[in-house]
Amino acid sequence: MSRNPFELLGTDAGSRARRGRLTLPHGTVETPAFMPVGTAATVKAVLPRDVAETGAEMILSNTYHLALKPGEALVEKLGGLHSFMGWSGPILTDSGGFQVFSLPGREIDEEGVKFRYEKGGERVTLTPERSMQIQQALGADIAMAFDECIPYPATHDYADASVDRTLRWAERCLASHSREDQLLFGIMQGGVFDDLRARSAAATAEMAFDGLAVGGVSVGEGHDNLKKVVDATERRLPKDRVRYLMGVGLPEDILESVARGMDIFDCVIPTRYGRGGTLFTVRGKLRIEHNRYRRDSYPIDTSCDCHTCTHFSRAYVRHLFLTKELLGATLASIHNIRFYQRMMAGAREALENGRYTAWMSEWLTAYGNGRISS
Amino acid sequence: MSRNPFELLGTDAGSRARRGRLTLPHGTVETPAFMPVGTAATVKAVLPRDVAETGAEMILSNTYHLALKPGEALVEKLGGLHSFMGWSGPILTDSGGFQVFSLPGREIDEEGVKFRYEKGGERVTLTPERSMQIQQALGADIAMAFDECIPYPATHDYADASVDRTLRWAERCLASHSREDQLLFGIMQGGVFDDLRARSAAATAEMAFDGLAVGGVSVGEGHDNLKKVVDATERRLPKDRVRYLMGVGLPEDILESVARGMDIFDCVIPTRYGRGGTLFTVRGKLRIEHNRYRRDSYPIDTSCDCHTCTHFSRAYVRHLFLTKELLGATLASIHNIRFYQRMMAGAREALENGRYTAWMSEWLTAYGNGRISS
Repeated sequence: MSRNPFELLGTDAGSRARRGRLTLPHGTVETPAFMPVGTAATVKAVLPRDVAETGAEMILSNTYHLALKPGEALVEKLGGLHSFMGWSGPILTDSGGFQVFSLPGREIDEEGVKFRYEKGGERVTLTPERSMQIQQALGADIAMAFDECIPYPATHDYADASVDRTLRWAERCLASHSREDQLLFGIMQGGVFDDLRARSAAATAEMAFDGLAVGGVSVGEGHDNLKKVVDATERRLPKDRVRYLMGVGLPEDILESVARGMDIFDCVIPTRYGRGGTLFTVRGKLRIEHNRYRRDSYPIDTSCDCHTCTHFSRAYVRHLFLTKELLGATLASIHNIRFYQRMMAGAREALENGRYTAWMSEWLTAYGNGRISS
Repeated sequence: MSRNPFELLGTDAGSRARRGRLTLPHGTVETPAFMPVGTAATVKAVLPRDVAETGAEMILSNTYHLALKPGEALVEKLGGLHSFMGWSGPILTDSGGFQVFSLPGREIDEEGVKFRYEKGGERVTLTPERSMQIQQALGADIAMAFDECIPYPATHDYADASVDRTLRWAERCLASHSREDQLLFGIMQGGVFDDLRARSAAATAEMAFDGLAVGGVSVGEGHDNLKKVVDATERRLPKDRVRYLMGVGLPEDILESVARGMDIFDCVIPTRYGRGGTLFTVRGKLRIEHNRYRRDSYPIDTSCDCHTCTHFSRAYVRHLFLTKELLGATLASIHNIRFYQRMMAGAREALENGRYTAWMSEWLTAYGNGRISS
C-alpha cells in the first residue's frame, strides 16, 4: 500500500456511519458513494456525459466481460479503459471471480478457476496473477483481489476453507500487482458465518491492501443475513481504511449498510430495473408501463432534478416503453442512476449534520421500504 | 394560406439550387434542410437535446404511428407533440397516407382509405378530414395534406386517376384544416410520368397551400427516375413557395435534388443505417462491425465534430455493436444525423458563395458516390 487513499471526514453519533473521501488517480470520490455499473465498458444505454451529470463520481466495470470482449490487450492499446470508454473519472474493476464462479462446469483448485467462456469453447484459467494482469492492462483506478466467491447456502467447512484459500490468493495478488497508479483492494469472505467473517476480516485487514471489500454477498442471502455479515465483518476493520460492500444493492440494503460502516457500493439494479421499466421514486418504486400512468403529465419523481424528470412526463416515458423505443431505456436509466446519487448525497448531508440515523428512518418511511406503488 | 413562411434568400448561378429560410411557429429553418425522423415521437435512441446539438432545426414525426400509439388525443391532452416529446423546435407531421397505402388489405375509395392497424383488428378509415383532425391535435408546425400515394410501378391510367383524386382530397384538406398556428403543405403525385407530374404540380401550386411537397417517391423508383420526377415537377412550381421532397434519402439523391430546386428533405436513413452499424463519412459509408476497425483509434469520421467523433474511437463503437450494447445505436445515430446536417450546412454555404454545383461535384467525388469503403 502506498499512501492511504481514504480520508475519514467524520462519523455519525448514533450509528457506525462514516463520511469520507477517496482520492484516486482520476479524481476524488465523496463517500458514502454508489457506483453505477458499466459492465462492458458502457453504463448501458447512457452516454458517459449523462452518467457524470447524475453526480456519479466513480463507475465499476467488469474484468470478466472485458477480457472476453474486446480483450484487455485492445483496451490497453487504445489507452486504457478511461480513454476507451470516454469516462475520465475514477473506475473500479472487479476481479472476474464473481462471474466465473457462477459458470456451470467451472473447476476450482489452488491455482485458480478453470472455465470456458462459451459452451464448447477453449478452456481458460483465471488465477490471481492473471486477474491482476488483466486489471493492470485495463488500468482502472482500483483493482480488486481475486477471491473465491462461494455460493449461498454453503457449509461452515466449505466457507472455512474458502476463507483460507482467499487469503492465500490475496497474497498472490499483492505479490503480482505492480501498477503504481492503481490501488488494490482485498476481498473478505466467510459466507454467513460470524466467526469466519471475523477471521477473514481480521486477516485481510492486516495485509497491504488500499481498501477492504465485503465479498460473497448479493448471492441470495437476503436482507437480514446481509446485515449480519456486515456487522460481523465491520467489528474487525480498522477505521482508517475504506470499506466497499460489493454488489449491494437495493436502497434499503445500502442505507442499512451505511449505518453499519460501509463506504462504497455498486449494483446493476438502477440500470437493470430501469431498462425493465421499474423506476425509483422517494415514495417507492413504480412500474412505468402500468395503465395508471397513461395520461400522467407529472415527471417520474416530482422531487427529482435529473434530465428525464426535468424534460419528460410519465406518460411519455410509458409511451416509449410500450412502443419499445430505445430512448425509454436511456431515460429510465438516467433517472434511476440520479435517484441513487441523490440518495447518497442525502446520506452524506445527513452525516455532516450528525443525524444519519434519523434521516435514514425518515427516508425509508417515505420510501415505504421499496414497495411497488402501482 | 396566411403569410408565406418561406423567404428565398438566393439562388445558384449554375443550377436551380436555392438558399432560403422557413419561419415557423417554433423557430426558423435554414434551407436546404434535412429533417431527422422521429416516427413515434422520438428520434430513435437519441435524446432531443442531442438531436438539437447535431444542428437539426426541424424533425418529422409520423401521424400513422402516433394515432395508433399513444393516440392523438393523449398527445393533445399533454400539451401537443412538442411538449410531449420534449422537442421545442419546429416539427412536421406527415399525413399517415404513406403508411396506410402500403398496408396489406387496405381499400381505397373516394372517401379515403379503409385499413386495420393490426391483423384481425378494428377496421378504421383514414380520410382527408380525419388526417387533418389528427394532425391538428398533434400540433406540429407543418401538417401535410392527405394524398393517394401509388406504388411503383403503376400504369399511366392509374397514376392519372390518382392525381385527380389527390387534388380532390387536397381541397378537402384545405377546407377542413383550421388551426391557425399550423401550416399546411400540399402533396403532388403523378408516378414517374412527366405529363402527370407537370399537371399535378401546376394544379397543386394554384391551391392555397403554405408549401408544396413531391410525394410518391422513395417507393423504389430509383435514382434516375427520382431526378426525372423532380425535374418534371419543379418546372411548374412558383419560385416563392418552399418545396419539400418527401422521404429522400441518400446523400447523393439529396444533393442532386437540391441542384434541382428542392428545399427540405426527410429520411430514416441516417438513424436506420446507424442502428444497423452503417456509418456515413465524407469518404463514403463504412460498416463499423468490420474487422478492419478492431484496433482503430480514429473517430468514425476524422473531419466530424459530433459528440461521438469527439469522444469515441471506431474500435469502441465497434465493440458496442459487437456486444449489442444500446449505446452503439445512440452513438451511431448521433454521428449520422450530424453527418447529414454538416452536408446540408456545406450545401448552404456553397450556395451563399455561388458555387453549389462545383461544391456538389467535389463532395460527391470525395464521397465516392456512397460506396461502402469496407
